[in-house]
Amino acid sequence: MTATTAAEDLVFGLTRVIDLPGLTAAGGAPLGAEDIAAIIGEADKFAREILWPNAQAADRAGAHLENGVVRTPESYKPAYRAWIEGGWQGLAAPAEVNGVETGGQDLPQALWMAVSELMTTGDMAFSLCPLLTIGAIEAISRFATKPQQEAWLPKLTTGEWTGSMCLTEPQAGSDLSQVRTKAEPDGTGGYRITGQKIYITYGDHDLTENTLHLILARLPDAPPGTRGISLFAAPKLLPDGRRNALRCGGLEKKMGIHASPTCVMLFEGAEAELVGEANRGLNAMFAMMNSARLGVGVQGVAQGARAQALAEAYAGQRIQGGQPISRHADVARMLAEIRAITLAGRLLALEAGAALDRHRLLGDAGAEARVALLTPIVKAWCTDRGVDSASLGIQVHGGMGFVEDTGAAQVLRDARIAPIYEGTNGIQALDLVGRKLFRDGGAHMRGLLAEVAATDPRLGEAVAAMTRATDWMLDRGLRDADAAQASAAAYLDAAGWTLGGWMLARAAKADGRYAPLATFYLARLLPRAAARIAEIEAADSLLALLPAA
Amino acid sequence: MTATTAAEDLVFGLTRVIDLPGLTAAGGAPLGAEDIAAIIGEADKFAREILWPNAQAADRAGAHLENGVVRTPESYKPAYRAWIEGGWQGLAAPAEVNGVETGGQDLPQALWMAVSELMTTGDMAFSLCPLLTIGAIEAISRFATKPQQEAWLPKLTTGEWTGSMCLTEPQAGSDLSQVRTKAEPDGTGGYRITGQKIYITYGDHDLTENTLHLILARLPDAPPGTRGISLFAAPKLLPDGRRNALRCGGLEKKMGIHASPTCVMLFEGAEAELVGEANRGLNAMFAMMNSARLGVGVQGVAQGARAQALAEAYAGQRIQGGQPISRHADVARMLAEIRAITLAGRLLALEAGAALDRHRLLGDAGAEARVALLTPIVKAWCTDRGVDSASLGIQVHGGMGFVEDTGAAQVLRDARIAPIYEGTNGIQALDLVGRKLFRDGGAHMRGLLAEVAATDPRLGEAVAAMTRATDWMLDRGLRDADAAQASAAAYLDAAGWTLGGWMLARAAKADGRYAPLATFYLARLLPRAAARIAEIEAADSLLALLPAA
Repeated sequence: MTATTAAEDLVFGLTRVIDLPGLTAAGGAPLGAEDIAAIIGEADKFAREILWPNAQAADRAGAHLENGVVRTPESYKPAYRAWIEGGWQGLAAPAEVNGVETGGQDLPQALWMAVSELMTTGDMAFSLCPLLTIGAIEAISRFATKPQQEAWLPKLTTGEWTGSMCLTEPQAGSDLSQVRTKAEPDGTGGYRITGQKIYITYGDHDLTENTLHLILARLPDAPPGTRGISLFAAPKLLPDGRRNALRCGGLEKKMGIHASPTCVMLFEGAEAELVGEANRGLNAMFAMMNSARLGVGVQGVAQGARAQALAEAYAGQRIQGGQPISRHADVARMLAEIRAITLAGRLLALEAGAALDRHRLLGDAGAEARVALLTPIVKAWCTDRGVDSASLGIQVHGGMGFVEDTGAAQVLRDARIAPIYEGTNGIQALDLVGRKLFRDGGAHMRGLLAEVAATDPRLGEAVAAMTRATDWMLDRGLRDADAAQASAAAYLDAAGWTLGGWMLARAAKADGRYAPLATFYLARLLPRAAARIAEIEAADSLLALLPAA
Repeated sequence: MTATTAAEDLVFGLTRVIDLPGLTAAGGAPLGAEDIAAIIGEADKFAREILWPNAQAADRAGAHLENGVVRTPESYKPAYRAWIEGGWQGLAAPAEVNGVETGGQDLPQALWMAVSELMTTGDMAFSLCPLLTIGAIEAISRFATKPQQEAWLPKLTTGEWTGSMCLTEPQAGSDLSQVRTKAEPDGTGGYRITGQKIYITYGDHDLTENTLHLILARLPDAPPGTRGISLFAAPKLLPDGRRNALRCGGLEKKMGIHASPTCVMLFEGAEAELVGEANRGLNAMFAMMNSARLGVGVQGVAQGARAQALAEAYAGQRIQGGQPISRHADVARMLAEIRAITLAGRLLALEAGAALDRHRLLGDAGAEARVALLTPIVKAWCTDRGVDSASLGIQVHGGMGFVEDTGAAQVLRDARIAPIYEGTNGIQALDLVGRKLFRDGGAHMRGLLAEVAATDPRLGEAVAAMTRATDWMLDRGLRDADAAQASAAAYLDAAGWTLGGWMLARAAKADGRYAPLATFYLARLLPRAAARIAEIEAADSLLALLPAA
């Protein structure tokens, strides 16, 4: 096996698998293979030289709340300065919104996802901060007024300000209808926000002077449930320089991403502006989350890449039985599995990114539907595989994997959050089945499966099983919500294994160097799709266990 | 689903599935169902009242090396005193060895495994200490001289002393042929040990005054490789009260089991005695490890049980969408999976324990072969499932699973070591195929599979696939070591899924309360065996990736 690096795989994926040069040329903003290689090369350098060397120390140091102020690890301030100076934050941000010049570079989403993978591999806890800002840029670009855009977009696009997403409350996790935070008109067109939000990533920190908080809250006359939630924006520092009435009330002690502050945020009559229409906040939040969900899927890939880098390096130099353990077939199995699922996820995420770009640059409606279909799969399948890779990576290290020195354990501790946040993977599965599949009677899924089947005959069996499962969902699942939910996670997972095989088959066609890994995946890993599909068809055996309502 | 507790399942498994009352009666030392229930009830009480309430605080406190002395968490000293006072350490230890009265209670191994599961569920880090002592009792009972047995067995059997297993060195992990620690005769029949051992669980601690270290080392004239390794015993305190020349040189900073000290042990001319024959130390060590391997398999079950208890309690009270999340089918899926694989592992471990007891009490040679076959499967499959359950348990908790407060994260951090120590799960797979299967041309495996097939027709497909895989191993694998190793882990895993299904089918036959869970497992989880068997048959796709020698 030719051992390509993640950066090489990304350049290959962008240029040869999703054909970003062709796509951007058709969209009138051509980006050549050399440009792509140059940008990926710079991102890789940033990740390797600035993030990777400090990631383990940052994990050990963690984030701390001191006298009401959140402190990040020492290395983060210079790293964040380099991030701003490199112009990374605005890479794929719109250059102009509503006539407002934002400073964004308008580069493709697929390219951003590749850059984001490398940065996250370098240090996941650090990379969460820019990721949240991307979400804020997205929401404000789509839903805010021009004055709001003028005030906020340039600051966010440079990275001079960061953004936060304040959704969850103790009683409102997956179920946002329970949101209680209040927004009261202040009589001058503004609002005062009062309430408590939890799990707010980089809700407070010392990397920038200001943070723009996007907050879900209820107006006094709002209807109950999700139709009474509005989106507000409240900066940490007000335009006149005063501190806004909001603060970090505590940090969670977490299993991983220790250097990323996960804040309890207290809003104590904070001055805020309404973003978008009243009572339509959930819409805006979903727009923001959809982009963030792809970003979290990329985190899964990145954790796989980090696990891979550590495990391959260790196995290459650890001698047991007279040879490096990478030569032992059982260790080679684990290394190949990590490499195969990580590459499959990487390319699948790029495929989703390409569909985003096709929609944006070419106005392709089919591409929009593909993004919708792929988003929950990329989010859930790639993050589950990230956890698998991290766990396999520990196993490759043997006892050294369990002690913190090698960094292998940190990968699992960090990766374990990704299947949970931005909508648990269970929620992704319900989204895939309940919204994406049922919405068009399975038309887009069938179209995608036909493409998959046409790529490589070795995918035929998995496609046939997926087609059967799709029929089952549209028949039984559409009539019986419990049955659909009982099998949604297995359906998503089977789709992920199948589409992952599709991406590797495409890679093998584009470059023979990837053929052995594709063959390994199709022969040894793809059968897992069939096992999950058997689960779907046996929904009743689970429903029999459901506790009475 | 009737939600039975772990203790209820254990009593049921011991009495109704493996028929321990019948087995012990046939062996002339009858143990009735009521006795079993009483002992399990006491163990459950100990685990719930003494261990469980302090396990999370103990994890937070951790073990510390202070001025050369290892300190365990505050709650451990009283817990260990209660352990001794309850007489738990000697539960299944021989009452008499070579005419030496040890104080052991000679109760069945299967009963000990059940007790051990409950204790480990209460606090895995604590339970490691008694587990190591069991290994020392085993080795000394089988290989030591009578004077050695007189000196050590009574102390170890009460728990007044603990035992340690000093195998691993930095360059010698899975490959013990690389052991370099030296033992030099001191001219008076004794030896002086010099060298460094790593990953020594409870190598030093403050729970007892003395610890007996069992150490692998080389005599001056020893041949190279594994045939030149001997077993020695060196107490921390010598019979005359002096400190022996050995000490803890450092503690590992680990991902989990923080309260269990993992020591670097420095032997600086420590006074020791040879145990068993010179150069036959590996034999003795394997005897000790085989018993420990079943014990580690039980740890996997216990971590599943802990994950289950936490996840079921959380899901029962967490309201989202107007009902407890345990009513949501996708959450019910995760809970059912944890419960099913944990029960399957629990019963499979008891089956191995029963075989140990049939061999010991009835001299049944077939039972000995069954223990040999089941040991690697119980060790690897149950610990892999322990990790799965722990990860699913976190997922059930959503964001609360990733913060340390709920304890769900600790389960994964703790459980992750079990697939690694006492022989990695990869080593277990090589043992299953290379020793257990090839040794008798697959005869015992075929016999076991015939029993499985006869239990429930729903197991027929998995048994047919396992039979095909067994044929493949004995044909291709016997000719081609790389091919055997490439597929050994998948073979073991498929065997685990199949035998787990067998145990649940037996449980369902014995008591209809278990039928729904068995049906769930057979319909939804058992297909995973077929996926792993497809992997076996595609060994070549992995071998093509092996780096050149």
